Amino acid sequence: MKNYADLWLGYKEKKNNKGSELLKKFYLEGASDKDEVVKNAVKELKAGLKAMTGAEPEVVYGGAAPEIVIAKGTDIQDKEEYTVSLKDDGICITGKSGNAILYGVFDVLRTVACEKKVEEAYAPAKTSRPSNPLRMLNHWDNMDGSIERGYSGNSFFYVDNEIQTDERITDYARMIAAVGINAVVINNVNVKDAASYMITDRYFEKVAKLGEIFAGYGIGLYLCLNYASTIELGGLDSADPLDEKVIAWWKEKMAEVFKKIPTLKGFLVKADSEGRPGPFTYGRTQADGANMLADIVKDYGAIIIWRCFVYNCKQDWRDRKTDRARAGYDSFMPMDGDYHDNVILQIKNGPMDFQIREPISPLLGGLKKTNQMLEVQIAQEYTGHQIDVCYLIPEFKEILGFKTYCKETDDTVADIISGKTFNSRFSGIAAVTNTGNDFNWTGNYLAGANLFGFGRLAFDTELSAEDIAEEFIRMTISDDEEVVKTILGILLPSREIYERYTSPLGIGWMVRPETHYGCSVDGYEYDRWGTYHRADHLGIGVDRTDKGTGYAFQYNEPNASTYNDPEKCPDELVLFFHHLPYTHKLHSGKTVIQHIYDTHFEGYDEAKKMAADWDSLKGRLDDEIFENVRERFERQLINAREWCDQVNSYFYRKSGIEDEKGRQIW
Amino acid sequence: MKNYADLWLGYKEKKNNKGSELLKKFYLEGASDKDEVVKNAVKELKAGLKAMTGAEPEVVYGGAAPEIVIAKGTDIQDKEEYTVSLKDDGICITGKSGNAILYGVFDVLRTVACEKKVEEAYAPAKTSRPSNPLRMLNHWDNMDGSIERGYSGNSFFYVDNEIQTDERITDYARMIAAVGINAVVINNVNVKDAASYMITDRYFEKVAKLGEIFAGYGIGLYLCLNYASTIELGGLDSADPLDEKVIAWWKEKMAEVFKKIPTLKGFLVKADSEGRPGPFTYGRTQADGANMLADIVKDYGAIIIWRCFVYNCKQDWRDRKTDRARAGYDSFMPMDGDYHDNVILQIKNGPMDFQIREPISPLLGGLKKTNQMLEVQIAQEYTGHQIDVCYLIPEFKEILGFKTYCKETDDTVADIISGKTFNSRFSGIAAVTNTGNDFNWTGNYLAGANLFGFGRLAFDTELSAEDIAEEFIRMTISDDEEVVKTILGILLPSREIYERYTSPLGIGWMVRPETHYGCSVDGYEYDRWGTYHRADHLGIGVDRTDKGTGYAFQYNEPNASTYNDPEKCPDELVLFFHHLPYTHKLHSGKTVIQHIYDTHFEGYDEAKKMAADWDSLKGRLDDEIFENVRERFERQLINAREWCDQVNSYFYRKSGIEDEKGRQIW
Repeated sequence: MKNYADLWLGYKEKKNNKGSELLKKFYLEGASDKDEVVKNAVKELKAGLKAMTGAEPEVVYGGAAPEIVIAKGTDIQDKEEYTVSLKDDGICITGKSGNAILYGVFDVLRTVACEKKVEEAYAPAKTSRPSNPLRMLNHWDNMDGSIERGYSGNSFFYVDNEIQTDERITDYARMIAAVGINAVVINNVNVKDAASYMITDRYFEKVAKLGEIFAGYGIGLYLCLNYASTIELGGLDSADPLDEKVIAWWKEKMAEVFKKIPTLKGFLVKADSEGRPGPFTYGRTQADGANMLADIVKDYGAIIIWRCFVYNCKQDWRDRKTDRARAGYDSFMPMDGDYHDNVILQIKNGPMDFQIREPISPLLGGLKKTNQMLEVQIAQEYTGHQIDVCYLIPEFKEILGFKTYCKETDDTVADIISGKTFNSRFSGIAAVTNTGNDFNWTGNYLAGANLFGFGRLAFDTELSAEDIAEEFIRMTISDDEEVVKTILGILLPSREIYERYTSPLGIGWMVRPETHYGCSVDGYEYDRWGTYHRADHLGIGVDRTDKGTGYAFQYNEPNASTYNDPEKCPDELVLFFHHLPYTHKLHSGKTVIQHIYDTHFEGYDEAKKMAADWDSLKGRLDDEIFENVRERFERQLINAREWCDQVNSYFYRKSGIEDEKGRQIW
Repeated sequence: MKNYADLWLGYKEKKNNKGSELLKKFYLEGASDKDEVVKNAVKELKAGLKAMTGAEPEVVYGGAAPEIVIAKGTDIQDKEEYTVSLKDDGICITGKSGNAILYGVFDVLRTVACEKKVEEAYAPAKTSRPSNPLRMLNHWDNMDGSIERGYSGNSFFYVDNEIQTDERITDYARMIAAVGINAVVINNVNVKDAASYMITDRYFEKVAKLGEIFAGYGIGLYLCLNYASTIELGGLDSADPLDEKVIAWWKEKMAEVFKKIPTLKGFLVKADSEGRPGPFTYGRTQADGANMLADIVKDYGAIIIWRCFVYNCKQDWRDRKTDRARAGYDSFMPMDGDYHDNVILQIKNGPMDFQIREPISPLLGGLKKTNQMLEVQIAQEYTGHQIDVCYLIPEFKEILGFKTYCKETDDTVADIISGKTFNSRFSGIAAVTNTGNDFNWTGNYLAGANLFGFGRLAFDTELSAEDIAEEFIRMTISDDEEVVKTILGILLPSREIYERYTSPLGIGWMVRPETHYGCSVDGYEYDRWGTYHRADHLGIGVDRTDKGTGYAFQYNEPNASTYNDPEKCPDELVLFFHHLPYTHKLHSGKTVIQHIYDTHFEGYDEAKKMAADWDSLKGRLDDEIFENVRERFERQLINAREWCDQVNSYFYRKSGIEDEKGRQIW
């Protein structure tokens, strides 16, 4: 008996394709039965169809396809594109790699699981090309088994500094391959203690084993590096990227690492950030640091992904000139074009840190000569800790659809990270992941929708948040129409509901600093993190216009002018860009203070409604799932009420302005 | 080489009594050379005099005195009283117990160490009677070595759940005996994990050894009990104090405990408080719980000390009717008279929890038929963590001098706890202590003044804060007159300075909830601890008058009426009792808001002056001491600036009222 759920791989008996002749034969074109990924694809196909329809198809192979080489960049998409078509006596999956075949297989399984008829799904033939070359999960798992910002138990990769290679890892690889993930970083970006030894004999064997498991499902293995390894492992006195001794050490180390871990595709590096060491220590640029490593790993067909999360985390709250929002752009734009071609900059979606609402990072649309990757977070660090339901795909859709005006056409974030805007060599999207060793992997079953959804959206950014949610519900929870409809009604508005009862109008950060869960309006206000709301008795917000920190002008026009003008700035971001009186009228016609009161009361009411809707499902779905989510809704309601009352009380006490509707404020 | 300082036992060469004939012979009357305490007293006398003056006195014994029996109550003071007088050829110390002789010896040593001439000090003869029967230190040491609210390293009693009985323990006993301490509770009141096993074979031997060490210096050993021991150790399903099985278990257990630890004098119990189990769980009263244990330990001449720190720690911040300040009185007054005569209630000095300024607990002066003990805290939990200098003896003097109006005369707190007001059988004073295994025992050398001072004041509540500080400085740091004067100038106002830059006008609690160090004005405002300031844009404070929670009427008249009236209430407590507009005029003539601004700017400036005064001592005292305190002043100034700026900014932003003096507020 496995001690974890199968989620969307837990195929149940289905009706609509039962007995279909088409399921009796599969032509896999461009596929060799010697390819490990193809072998696994066929295993998935046979087991899945058997469970759902009883079919036991014959498989016909149509020739071998070459392996995907990460370092060849956009070539990845060509190789991973697949077509599913119908033949007279079966279904044909065509592709140029094992991955393409695997994704085609999962497409068919999804079609059957969602009770769509294959005849309709694949006539005419369906061709699917991944939107992004790299579709990556970043694990913040520590080797002691803890997970930084983990809300679903401990790591399944590590127990007491030992690497696990058990069946759960294989099932994890299957689960994420099924939604189109092709890259995984298995250790925390903050590389310390035992994790520094990941690139030594102490762990080579187990890491290599993990790499093999993932490779079998078309997933590239990546590691986070300790930038100070030359000092901590090498015994050198420097980590200066231009120091010959440092370079020599890394050359020798990488030769060893790629020999011992042949499946390794590259590294993710957090340097000069929140106390991590980096090139700045030696008066070098971020590009110097990234390029040094990239030049060395290039020989092994590998890449360096470099995080842009660089800011002053010891700011004085009295200082109104320094603006953390500016830091990423100010640090990385001057070096646009300096990064070598196997370096990718990984850019968080917003300029701050995964708040429930932020503007898009101006680096996206700013950088024009640098490989770029978008970083989002499905670990619900600031969005409810997988206690509160918060389906993030609508937010990701907004981010991807944002017009940066960096070019006349193809200027959205989705365009940029797909590679097509600047014809980038590499690009893609990464999510800080939300998994752990809980039975259901993600703490709250409904948080599974973010893992499922991230993968699906990363593969096809055209998919709608609703379609993705529906697939998730049907495959994971139930395809009872009433259940599907009710859960859709919970998931789809959940992000806006969470936003309503938490931080208003894009201001963010009114959260308990210790945990990032629960309300503390002033929690960050007098601290060193650059995260302020600047509320006084007259108004609130941060002036980031030309009269303030000037952050608005890190955007291309017309975005810059839109954000710079409180009359044009979208309501949901207006306090991010402007300090406004509580009596300022929003586009909605409400004053800022009335908006605060209204949204908070509404958000809490809506949370209660979501919980009640869930309760209505009792008996219509698996008890374990029902109870898991019910218990979390109980906690969500406590949280939502605290947020509602604390935020309203705080601003009522500060402004002295009465709620127009006379509701109870404390 | 010892890895800890000798503090006030580090006797140095002295001038003024050098060569005195009187130091050549000591008559110890009422003392036997067989008594362990007397033996140790003589050792102290000889070693101390030798180090300070070179004298090697002959000692003449004058008969044995009976042992002190704790259960005989006020009898303790009779036995511990000592007289030092001069004879033609020596000094005579007279007393009725080893303790009396020991205290007389330390009196002589202190006289010599402070360069007072024995001829003047003891002619006429000096008789000193302890003000309080019990003078106790409460250690919040955990058996894993951590100390709850410890700011000076780890426990010297426990390392990794093993009890230490090394030389440091003996030197600790000497050090606290030297200032008159006669009771010590060696484990945290929150009894969990290994500490529950203190009363089992696992620890008997070592606890007995500690008891012997302390007994050698006239110090009684006390343990904290886990009230749920019947369940956790005994395997019973109840801890109901009226349950025969429970009583039988305790009887058997206590027989074992007092046999194995013959020096044990009793127990301190925290029940039904902050999650600890207690009689309330079984619908019994606190008296039921305390009496059950007291009746059993009475057979062994032992006592039960019961903490009164009972309140609702899950309050709803929206609820303005519940008042944590009321809880102690409301819980314990109805049972006045119900407690058996070997029970003592231990009452914190204020109704909340060791804030820098609180009114006196109304239980003191309320209870008339119950043995009482005052609890203060020298661990600087809310008063600067032994980073910020905060000499607490002036505060303790205020507390002791408070007129409760419980009787026509002898109605001060000092009178009550001395036993004379109600002719109590037992009474005294306890301090949550500030020691740890740091080299200097208390983190900051100047925090040593609180340990020294607490003992001295507990023994003689008539001593002035200034005299105590001067003794501490001369004995521990230096008797250079310039040094003494400068450090006195730092210690004496330090508590008021700390108060000025932290919470104004008695409101308290504007502290970071996680650590209790550093400012967070709203840190407790929307939380469950019953600790609110209720500030809005118009005013601040908690209405505890007859129009509010009525707490003021827990006091005897005229205190009740004084506190109830904002025009009569002392400024320093006015926000504890009243919600007032920022524009309310204080007795000082300042408005509340201007008081806030002024005191905060002044407090920070005064902290800077203290630090500069300390710096002026460089080279005039031991480098290690100088550097220890200098480094802490550096941190204190950072803390004081943050408090000053955050409090001022918070109230400026909230009230919109300008500082009359136009100083920089952020």
